[in-house]
Amino acid sequence: MIIRINMRTKLVKQEKLPDKYQLLGGRGLTSRMLLDEIDPTCAPLGANNKLVIAPGLLGGTAAPCSGRLSVGAKSPLTGGIKESNGGGTAGGKLAKIGVKAIVIEDQPIEENFCILIVSSAGVRILPAVGLEGKGNYETANILQKKYGAAVSVISIGPAGERGYSLASVAITDMEGHPSRHCGRGGMGAVMGSKKIKAIVVDNNEAPAILYQNEKLFKEISKEWAQNVIPLKKGLTEYGTANLVNLVNSLGALPTRNYSYGSFTDAEQISGEYMKQRIEERGGKPSHACHPGCVIRCSNIYNDSKGNYLTSGLEYETIALLGSNCGISDLDFIAQLDNFCDDFGIDTMELGITLGVIMESGWAPFGDIDKMVELIGELKKDTLLGKLMGQGAVITGKVLGVQRVAAVKGQGISGYDPRGLQATGVTYATTPMGGDHTAGNCLPGRTGYRPETKDKDFLSKPEGMVELAKDMQVMTAVYDICGLCFFLGPSEDDMLRIAKLINAKSGVNLTAQDVIGFAKQLIKDEVEFNEKAGLSQSSNGLPEFFSSEKLGPYNYLFNISKEKMIQFYKKDC
Amino acid sequence: MIIRINMRTKLVKQEKLPDKYQLLGGRGLTSRMLLDEIDPTCAPLGANNKLVIAPGLLGGTAAPCSGRLSVGAKSPLTGGIKESNGGGTAGGKLAKIGVKAIVIEDQPIEENFCILIVSSAGVRILPAVGLEGKGNYETANILQKKYGAAVSVISIGPAGERGYSLASVAITDMEGHPSRHCGRGGMGAVMGSKKIKAIVVDNNEAPAILYQNEKLFKEISKEWAQNVIPLKKGLTEYGTANLVNLVNSLGALPTRNYSYGSFTDAEQISGEYMKQRIEERGGKPSHACHPGCVIRCSNIYNDSKGNYLTSGLEYETIALLGSNCGISDLDFIAQLDNFCDDFGIDTMELGITLGVIMESGWAPFGDIDKMVELIGELKKDTLLGKLMGQGAVITGKVLGVQRVAAVKGQGISGYDPRGLQATGVTYATTPMGGDHTAGNCLPGRTGYRPETKDKDFLSKPEGMVELAKDMQVMTAVYDICGLCFFLGPSEDDMLRIAKLINAKSGVNLTAQDVIGFAKQLIKDEVEFNEKAGLSQSSNGLPEFFSSEKLGPYNYLFNISKEKMIQFYKKDC
Repeated sequence: MIIRINMRTKLVKQEKLPDKYQLLGGRGLTSRMLLDEIDPTCAPLGANNKLVIAPGLLGGTAAPCSGRLSVGAKSPLTGGIKESNGGGTAGGKLAKIGVKAIVIEDQPIEENFCILIVSSAGVRILPAVGLEGKGNYETANILQKKYGAAVSVISIGPAGERGYSLASVAITDMEGHPSRHCGRGGMGAVMGSKKIKAIVVDNNEAPAILYQNEKLFKEISKEWAQNVIPLKKGLTEYGTANLVNLVNSLGALPTRNYSYGSFTDAEQISGEYMKQRIEERGGKPSHACHPGCVIRCSNIYNDSKGNYLTSGLEYETIALLGSNCGISDLDFIAQLDNFCDDFGIDTMELGITLGVIMESGWAPFGDIDKMVELIGELKKDTLLGKLMGQGAVITGKVLGVQRVAAVKGQGISGYDPRGLQATGVTYATTPMGGDHTAGNCLPGRTGYRPETKDKDFLSKPEGMVELAKDMQVMTAVYDICGLCFFLGPSEDDMLRIAKLINAKSGVNLTAQDVIGFAKQLIKDEVEFNEKAGLSQSSNGLPEFFSSEKLGPYNYLFNISKEKMIQFYKKDC
Repeated sequence: MIIRINMRTKLVKQEKLPDKYQLLGGRGLTSRMLLDEIDPTCAPLGANNKLVIAPGLLGGTAAPCSGRLSVGAKSPLTGGIKESNGGGTAGGKLAKIGVKAIVIEDQPIEENFCILIVSSAGVRILPAVGLEGKGNYETANILQKKYGAAVSVISIGPAGERGYSLASVAITDMEGHPSRHCGRGGMGAVMGSKKIKAIVVDNNEAPAILYQNEKLFKEISKEWAQNVIPLKKGLTEYGTANLVNLVNSLGALPTRNYSYGSFTDAEQISGEYMKQRIEERGGKPSHACHPGCVIRCSNIYNDSKGNYLTSGLEYETIALLGSNCGISDLDFIAQLDNFCDDFGIDTMELGITLGVIMESGWAPFGDIDKMVELIGELKKDTLLGKLMGQGAVITGKVLGVQRVAAVKGQGISGYDPRGLQATGVTYATTPMGGDHTAGNCLPGRTGYRPETKDKDFLSKPEGMVELAKDMQVMTAVYDICGLCFFLGPSEDDMLRIAKLINAKSGVNLTAQDVIGFAKQLIKDEVEFNEKAGLSQSSNGLPEFFSSEKLGPYNYLFNISKEKMIQFYKKDC
């Protein structure tokens, strides 16, 4: 069913899922519903935007890593369509309750925040008494005490309440920590504009997921899991931070606001170093972010006293709040990660924004005291805090910084496109803005094309456009299903996914069919953006990536703008 | 000739005007050269943008009001193509020297500013010794002392040096005051990014303008002037401020950040009141902003001691720094105008930005002390000053204000589109961003269509799309020629203009031909914007104009977004 909630009238409707949406889920459903239902030119934080929350097509099932939850809306950061997905426990629970999507419409006139309680019994809208201004950790804690430790909480921190464009939506993990974030594109600000502080998901008494062929579904799932586990050893052992040394060696690790591609102190922020530290302090170097995850690339990072500090300290956070700000103190980066999770902030956008502020001369790179001051400005909602809250592009404009690594208003990620050209193409072309999660092309993760294992391959322009397109399409398949992208990507997966959908729903899809769904999804997103005024001509990277050589290997991004503009012109 | 100056290499080239540009001038030339020469996706303040300065096709001639100077570049405010034109003496002088355009390319690596000396002898590039950080008044004064009182000065103030997106380009008037501004779109910031503080134009020893048929040219000019003068009595007598009472009576005077359409104290900021005050203090209620102006809508406004305070106190300045900020003290508005001229700021963008800041709760509307404080922030380049320097849209985003009257990143003007629907269509559709100067549709100035004299006519949606298109096209004709729009608009003018071009250049144009030039110009600008990523889908007004009724007449802007998007889709 679709749950439709009007936040002005407080009317809740449960609608049968229309036939046309039957084989959609996750990003497939959020983007399609936004295209179908909202005016693409609407004000992102106004009454006419909608927030759509959807588990994947395989959400709640026994498929490995299938619990991701998509949150979509028109983005206050990019002005275009946005979907951001995260792990945690809410996606699976919503699927089990039978919720295909929660559509949040309009906005209240009054200023007070609400919470939503979603369960098999329906939806309740209650005042968010005592929660306003609270961080995600305290919010989750209060709600778990009230509604039971087993509930999932989807929430926003002060950043989302204030409408910061870098505000995330938090989802509680298996320990109840609000550590999983739909980080990108300011989805937290849209949730805040609807005056929703939190959504409690209670799947107590929910019926079991129905399969047309449960046995077959579980067989395929098991084979897949067994196949994946040995392939992902690096992720399991070191988390995504296993990329620090790799990307540093490629000369593509954002360093001091993307002015260099290698960080002298990379070793101190590497996955290997982090693992050792986590183990010494009794944390968990390998941790599943949601039930059914077989890769367990998350972690629990304790402080020096052995107390919980943060969870899911990831590569992008380390690269952008670390090397990109000249910071090599992993404990400090973990503290920042905890702050971001609690305050409800995208660590990537913050890291790029801080790098821009440092470049403006406000603070030297690597100055921890000054970074603490800057975080204080955010907390206190000072003018500088408000400015930071609008992300890197606006901060750069106001402070007069020209080198701002962003596309369509959104900061890119922890991969300098000069060293990783295909990821650069994804930044430049995805309807999601400068977002690696739409199709990241790394040596270890483009295994379906053996030649990409050659490290140098990805620093050369040849074949990158095609690679980026393939990766964006395959990524969209995982996103539709609520599957973690780290399962693949592989062409074998496309077939597995088709078979799983068939076994669950009694349809008869081929691998090509699911790829077709993904292509249609991207086409829908491109159409939305075109209608929003964000045409394909807005594809492209900032000029400096093509004019400033990136040391130490002196790479330039050398794929023509014309190719970026033409990228999605004809088809996907 | 075209003078091409590379600010990195300091190379100056004089090029023969290519045949294809022979019948272009002013905005026609700036926009066409930008489309031909720059990458529309370039960074506005980067090396790849160009600043093009061009007198009109009839610049320097005996045609009435023909001395306007166009300044064009990709705009840091809108991200699209921009042309802004102003009066003063430089346009005519450049034309007399034989300069069709000055094209300023690239940017220096060093930080120091330069000045350019343009004369019949050529171009010199000199260090701007002692001028950096100076206001336009002092800058002009120093340069006039050095190069002679008769030179014209085109300059930027501190705002342009700092790269503020609301920075204007100043042009000295007939008294040598830098009071005429190419205000819109941040052209001053682009000039600043090229590290040019001022351009001195010295037409000493310049040859006389050549006419193919001088006698005929002068006859047509004389007839035109004689025809215009009686039609424009209101402008001559009260300046553009004659609109205050009119627009107030239409219920379309922006008041307290566009929350109301009528201002209780309108009388105190009216043209009638201003005229009386100017006369009492020995100023000039009617003043020509450039040689050959027969309308003389400018003025010289003295302070209470009878000393010069500002010149060209105009309607838009009064509406946006006055009623839109809740201010009814005309002396204070005149002081602000002087500050803006000196600091090099667009009064309109500043007025809208201040209205947004007031709405955020920073200061009550009408609080002069607080406004003085805000101006102090700008002067001191504090963080709030820098934010204001980026204009209303970014200020609104950072301060969380939803009601921001802007289109394509640029604040609109002193005409609420709910009461003046056709002007609203122009804001929504012109490639220039929210800019009334691209085609303002007022009762007194749409005389070529008698029905528009009916005041109510312009508050209704019928016929507004067609009216706005006609006005945008006709306005472009005046802009190409360097003519003041206040001459018309009329269909008769199109014929007069064709005849004048014929008499000057020995061609054989019809009225339809010059209209064709204007249509092609707008088409070029739309093409530039499309390539810059600013598609026709970005046409449209902010949502609140269609959802919040404007008192006292409860007007809504009720022309569909679809019509705005389709406006220039097929042809001009």
